This record gives sequence, structure tokens and C-alpha cells, in this order.
Amino acid sequence: MNLVTQLRDITGAEHVLVEPAATAPYLTDWRKRYHGAALAVVRPGSTDEVARVVAACAAAGTPMLPQGGNTGLVGGSTPDADGNTVLISLQRMNRVRAVDRENDTITVEAGCVLATVQQAAREHDRLFPLSLAAEGTATIGGNLATNAGGTQVLRYGNTRELTLGLEVVLASGEIWNGLRALRKDNTGYDLKQLFIGSEGTLGVITAATLKLFPLPRAQVTAFAAVPTLHAAARLLDRARAGAGATLTAFEVMSVGCVRRTVTELPRVRAPLPLTSAWYALLELSDHESEAHAATLLEEILGAAIESGDVEDSVVAASLDQSKSLWQLREGIPEAHAKAGGNVKHDIALPVSAIPDFVEATNAELAARFPWIEPAVFGHLGDGNLHYNMGTREGTPIAVAFGREKEINAIVHAAVAKRAGSISAEHGIGQLKRAELPNFKPAVELELMRRIKQALDPQGLMNPGKVL
Amino acid sequence: MNLVTQLRDITGAEHVLVEPAATAPYLTDWRKRYHGAALAVVRPGSTDEVARVVAACAAAGTPMLPQGGNTGLVGGSTPDADGNTVLISLQRMNRVRAVDRENDTITVEAGCVLATVQQAAREHDRLFPLSLAAEGTATIGGNLATNAGGTQVLRYGNTRELTLGLEVVLASGEIWNGLRALRKDNTGYDLKQLFIGSEGTLGVITAATLKLFPLPRAQVTAFAAVPTLHAAARLLDRARAGAGATLTAFEVMSVGCVRRTVTELPRVRAPLPLTSAWYALLELSDHESEAHAATLLEEILGAAIESGDVEDSVVAASLDQSKSLWQLREGIPEAHAKAGGNVKHDIALPVSAIPDFVEATNAELAARFPWIEPAVFGHLGDGNLHYNMGTREGTPIAVAFGREKEINAIVHAAVAKRAGSISAEHGIGQLKRAELPNFKPAVELELMRRIKQALDPQGLMNPGKVL
Repeated sequence: MNLVTQLRDITGAEHVLVEPAATAPYLTDWRKRYHGAALAVVRPGSTDEVARVVAACAAAGTPMLPQGGNTGLVGGSTPDADGNTVLISLQRMNRVRAVDRENDTITVEAGCVLATVQQAAREHDRLFPLSLAAEGTATIGGNLATNAGGTQVLRYGNTRELTLGLEVVLASGEIWNGLRALRKDNTGYDLKQLFIGSEGTLGVITAATLKLFPLPRAQVTAFAAVPTLHAAARLLDRARAGAGATLTAFEVMSVGCVRRTVTELPRVRAPLPLTSAWYALLELSDHESEAHAATLLEEILGAAIESGDVEDSVVAASLDQSKSLWQLREGIPEAHAKAGGNVKHDIALPVSAIPDFVEATNAELAARFPWIEPAVFGHLGDGNLHYNMGTREGTPIAVAFGREKEINAIVHAAVAKRAGSISAEHGIGQLKRAELPNFKPAVELELMRRIKQALDPQGLMNPGKVL
Repeated sequence: MNLVTQLRDITGAEHVLVEPAATAPYLTDWRKRYHGAALAVVRPGSTDEVARVVAACAAAGTPMLPQGGNTGLVGGSTPDADGNTVLISLQRMNRVRAVDRENDTITVEAGCVLATVQQAAREHDRLFPLSLAAEGTATIGGNLATNAGGTQVLRYGNTRELTLGLEVVLASGEIWNGLRALRKDNTGYDLKQLFIGSEGTLGVITAATLKLFPLPRAQVTAFAAVPTLHAAARLLDRARAGAGATLTAFEVMSVGCVRRTVTELPRVRAPLPLTSAWYALLELSDHESEAHAATLLEEILGAAIESGDVEDSVVAASLDQSKSLWQLREGIPEAHAKAGGNVKHDIALPVSAIPDFVEATNAELAARFPWIEPAVFGHLGDGNLHYNMGTREGTPIAVAFGREKEINAIVHAAVAKRAGSISAEHGIGQLKRAELPNFKPAVELELMRRIKQALDPQGLMNPGKVL
């Protein structure tokens, strides 16, 4: 019996797609940069079905690629062009299995859309803090496979830190039920950590038990004009000292990013005159009251104005104003996309290294490419910058894309020099696979290969990605 | 050249101990329950020396056991009796390599005593939050190898969550420099997670880069009498909702524990009349002021008194009073030791399962052993209980020790039934190794063996522990 027939027996024929019109949406990433082919797209509806699909593929020696919401940015969930791969879509596995309000945990299947997980938590008066631009489409399984970050990492950590347990179908088709709901468990190697962030190369995550948090009573946002990134870093330090874990976000954006966003997106307004070089967005999530949070923010910003680190600032007076400040920050990628895109880098550095990195690398790029215009923004509190490069007025963006490799090389060398990461949030996928050996010690790559060999000896799980 | 001679060449003869009088302290655990033998105790002074020691042992096919402060509770750092093992003490590797205040990170060698790390952070106006009874002796390397927990896990997580990077000497003697200081880094498998909590069975941790936090401005503690563990769980919920991450500890103790502690330890006083069944200790770490924290605690406790969850309470009026409340909690193990000890269990459960677990298991044990007296305390906020069993007045504790295996079996079965952990904080070591197969799925044990095989193919790293 051929493999496709076996898959039809497992899931029902209607959940095995082979026609190009049906499979097409699964075979291209959402930025339409990668295009692949598949023997079939299979949509199992349960962990048991996933296990049988994987066992059948393993027996046939057929490569497999697990896919969630297909919102990745590095081609990690697009197959190669050979057409031998079975793409396993987890989208039908979208049940919230359990919410344990008293234990502050939720157990969800991999195909749950992130926004659904957030909503299920909220219905139980709880917060699931993972939050990112694609949350209406991205699945929690994809978030886990890529260890997604987002805007609340400063307080709550990445997806990894939010995970207590996993259920995984191994490369053999065996099911590992590691769905623990425990904050402490020191009984051997913490295997879930291997699957988190492994981009589908070690197994198929089918469900997870995640941490919940009490819902804060108020979220208040402020917007501050700062003269330099050094001043922004000092403001971050002051805000952390004054607000502790109440500070849930600290974002920065260059004035160019802000200008571009208010120009391209009519719904977005700048809350301050755009006369400073940088702007910071601070968010407090307060368990007392909106008034308490606003007062705290005003104290922090007042002291920073006195010290010269802040040139001007505004504290949102309402939830609507807070949302509109977030729109400004979250509109940046859309605004740049409307203007033709730019050359992107998703980098992480020690926070202490960021101001010098930006100054030195901006200068190096400007010396080499006089037409370049940096569009820099990101999560300063996490040391994570979206260090993107466009062109000045008058130079078409195609010029920058034509020099993309050279720009990448300069940026990544500057990152490596400061012990940073060339992929803070988005993973390696196909996009950065060839670069990885330049940035990892050989001994680490060898360890990764040994882990891959131990967990996927046939090399069938998402081949051609990461390693 | 024999191995001991090679070791002497590497570290200098004075750092290779072979005389029984010199090696004895390394060959017995601090509770004096395990006794082993060693070919030699070697005390390398640098990562390079550790690497050469490991390479020499690997070439000779000699087992190795890394040891920190030797404060473990499960025999994980005591060798077997064969006398073939080289014990590698990390105590000489005790330098603080770097503090990056602006990045909130510290890089320390494995042999640094935990209290030294805390102190180094404090000198830079930063908090390293890991805190546990043995902190004056335990080393950070041991904390990492056992993923230590302690009293601040509710807010800051276990040692794992505090770790950004590791330097590890692999079983081959190669050095893996994974000392990253990044909050976000999605560039492949997160290998450090394997070594954390692996109890020295996969490699030798030689250094770590750890997270620091802003120092809170005030820490205020309260003590509350609660009628039941259900009421304690509701108080926890209320405190989390009202204080968010400001709530840094939530401990419970049975009235028996409190009574024993004030009886045995003259320095400790009960702050309330001991008329309730349970007591909770709450700690707020506040970034505003002592007055702010005290007011918040009073509000939380006032509402809980109104709802009937709290019968009586006191908020510490000074740092000294806070310390004395902590002495009561932290004196419990010492008080029981003075009274002859008891049969200990270090378990974790979903918080929601704890009240029923204690009620049902207390009843089951009392039905079987009429002389039994529970002494239960722990970190309710983390779902972690020290569920210990002594004897009532008139029955010597030896009676309980004589039935230790039966008591363990009842307790661990009750834990397993509720998807809990038989080792929340202390690890597996030798003590619980034989039990592990009863509590882990076979597929998980097989995955652990494959990881062990991949990273330590000769099986020389701390054999006989964990797996």
C-alpha cells in the first residue's frame, strides 16, 4: 500500500491533500519568499493520528515537515522542491484541553491559534502573556517550535519560559507524554527544552501545558523622547529599578521609524513632536490601579527629564491612548512594507552593547553605502533589535536589496564581535542555515548534530532546516 | 604514565589528593548517608585544567564525578565504593569573572559559593535571587547541576530560569563555550538546558552567565493563620491577584512544624497564638517603599480575614521582624533534625491538587500507622511540599525510619496519581534512582538514555546517578 493511501486510512481521505490548488497555501511562506513541494499535506485530528502518520512516514523513509499557522519568517515550515516530503499540518488539533485556574496552567493542542490561548486564559481571569504581531494566525505549536518572543518577554520570558510540559510525537512515531503542570520537577534531563526552539527537526509537538498569570488590573503606557540610545538604556535601568516586574515592555524606535509609520499609516498619530533621535515606549502592568501605574510612570519619567535622559514624554490617560501608542510601535513593519520593505536583521546583544553597536554599525554602513537609511526598532529591554536598513529619499529600495548580502555580512560581523545572536526571535529555518557555522563554535554544532542523530536517526524530521 | 601522575602534571601535585585523611570530606555527603571511594580527588584551578583532567580520565576510561559544595541531599556527588573514580572538585574555580550591570548579568565560575554570587550582585546594586538554606556552602555549579529551587522560585524561577549561558567541559575533554549573555537567542538547540539539572552525568559545568535583577527597595513579610490548605490556596490566589510579581514568596507550614520549631529552637518565637491548623508566610519585594508593601499586605490579608480564609495575621513592622518570620520558616528542618529527624519527601504537585493530596495522604498514612505525625511545610506557590513524617509523642522516631520504604511507597503513589514529581528540588542522585522507572514513561527514560549515549558515549560522567 503506498504512503498516501496509508495516510488516507489514518486521517480519512478528506484530510490528505494532494491537489496543487489545495496544497498551495501550505507550500509557500507568508512573505512568499520560499516555495516548496510535497508528496501530500496531511491534517491529522488527534495525537494518535499524528503518531500513526509519523510512523507510516518513518517506515517509508519519507521526510516530514510539521507546520502550524505558517507565519514563520525564515522558511522553517516550507518544504524543499523535491516533492518527497509529507507536510503535517497541526491546524485541526486546536482544542483547549484544560484550564487549571488554581494551578495557573492551561493545556492546549499544538494547532491552537495563539489568540485563542490568550482568550481562553482571559475567560478564566488569567493572562497568557505571549503576544506578537501574528497572534491571530500563528499557532502555539509554531510558537513552541520557534521559541517565539514578542512584546512581553521583558517580564514573562520567551515561549520556553512559559512552558511546563509538552506532548511530542517522536521521529519513530512513539508518543512522549511530558504534559506536566509542575513548577518544580528535578527528575532527570529536561527533555522538553530540546523540542522547544528546534523548528520541527526533532519531533512533532502535539500539545503543551503552559503557565498562566494573574490578570493585571491596569496597563498603562508612556511614550518618551530620548536623545540617544545610551539615554534610553539609562531610562530602562531607572524604570526597572522603580517599577520592578511591573515594567512589562520597554521598546525603542528611531525617529525615522516613527516618521515612516505616521506617514504611511493614516490611523497612527505621533503623540509628541518628532524632534528627538529616539523614542521609547514603556508599559506598566499594575495589580493596583490605573492611577497607581500612571503616577509611577510620571515619577520615573519626571526624574529622567531632570537628569536629561528624557526630552519630552506623555503618559497615556486612557486605555485607548495606550492602544494608540502600541499601534505606533506595532505599525512599524507594516509601514515599511508599504514603502517597499527593507533589509531586515533580527539580532540580540547584551543590552549594554546596544548603543555602541548601533552607533558604530550605522557609521560603518553609511561609509560604505551613502544612500542607506537605518530603520531601527525593537525590544531594548530584551537586548533585541530589528536592525533594518532602507534607502534615503531618492534611492529606490531595490538598491538596498541588491546589496543585501554585503549589508548582512557587515551587520552580522558587528553582532558576532559583541557576542550577540543573528537570530533573536525568528529562528534559523532555511534563511540563516548556511550562516550558522560562521557564528557557532564547531563543538556546539557537533553537539547539535549528535542530538539530532540521537532523536531522529533517519534524519527525516524537517530536513534542510537549522542544521 | 599512570593517571594520578598525569593529573599531578596538570594541576600541580598539591591539588591531587589521594591520602584518606585528605579525601575523606569529599567522599561522604553532608547528611553522612553515603560513603564512597576515589582513585583521587583533583582540584583544577581553571577551565583549561578541567578540560585536561577530563581528557586524561576519558583516555584512561576512568569514571569522573564533578563536585561543588557537596551539600546535595540525594547522594548525587558521592562516588561508589569501587575507588576507581576521579572526583573533580570545582572549589578552586571560584572567581567572579564579570558583572555587567547594564545588561543585568553576572559571569561566575562553577566553584563560586552561592552567597558570594549574591554578594557580588549586591555590590553592583543588583539582586541574584537564588536563595536556599545551604547558600553559604553550596556552589553555583552544584546549583546548576541540580537546578536548585529555594525560596524565591515563585517570582524568579529555578536556577534554570536564571541561566543565560554555560561553559561546559564535555565528556571528551573538549570545552564548549556557551557563555552567552542574551535574553533572546534562537539559533538552534538550547544545549545548556541539557546540562542544567543533569547532576554531572553529561559533562562538567565550569562557568555560567546568570540573570540579575534590580534590587527591590523593601521586603516585607507577613504571617497568617489559615484554617485549611484550601484556604491557604485561596489566599495565594488573592495575593497573586493583588500583588502580581511583587509577591516573591508564599510558604506554608503545618501547626505541628511551627510548634516543633519554637520548642526546639529558643531563638525562634511564634508571632501568633498557635491555634490554627496551618500558617502561611507571605513576602512582598517592593520597588516603591516599605510602607507601600505593608499597606498592600494589610489590604490582602484584611480581605482574606473578611472572607474567612485567614483567622489571624501579622505584618512585620521592621526588617528584623521580617527576618524573624523567615527564621521560623527556615528553622523547621533544623528543629526536626534536633528532635531526631523524620522521613522526608520532596514532592511537587499542581497547586490545585495539594489540599486534597495532603488530606487524603495524611488519612491514608494515619490509618496504616497510628503513631505517625505529619510535619508538612513548603513552597505552596510553587506546588512544592516537604511532606515529612515523624512520630507522635511516645513513639520513638526509629519506628518511622523502620517503615520508611512503606511510607515512601504510599506517598509516592499518591504523588504519581496526581501527576506530581517525586523530586521537586533535590534531584535523583543515588537516593531515588531505583524509583525513577516507576514514575517516568519508558519512552522518556529511553530518550534520556539516548541523550546520555550521545553526550557521554563511554558512560564515564558520574555513573550510577540519575539513570
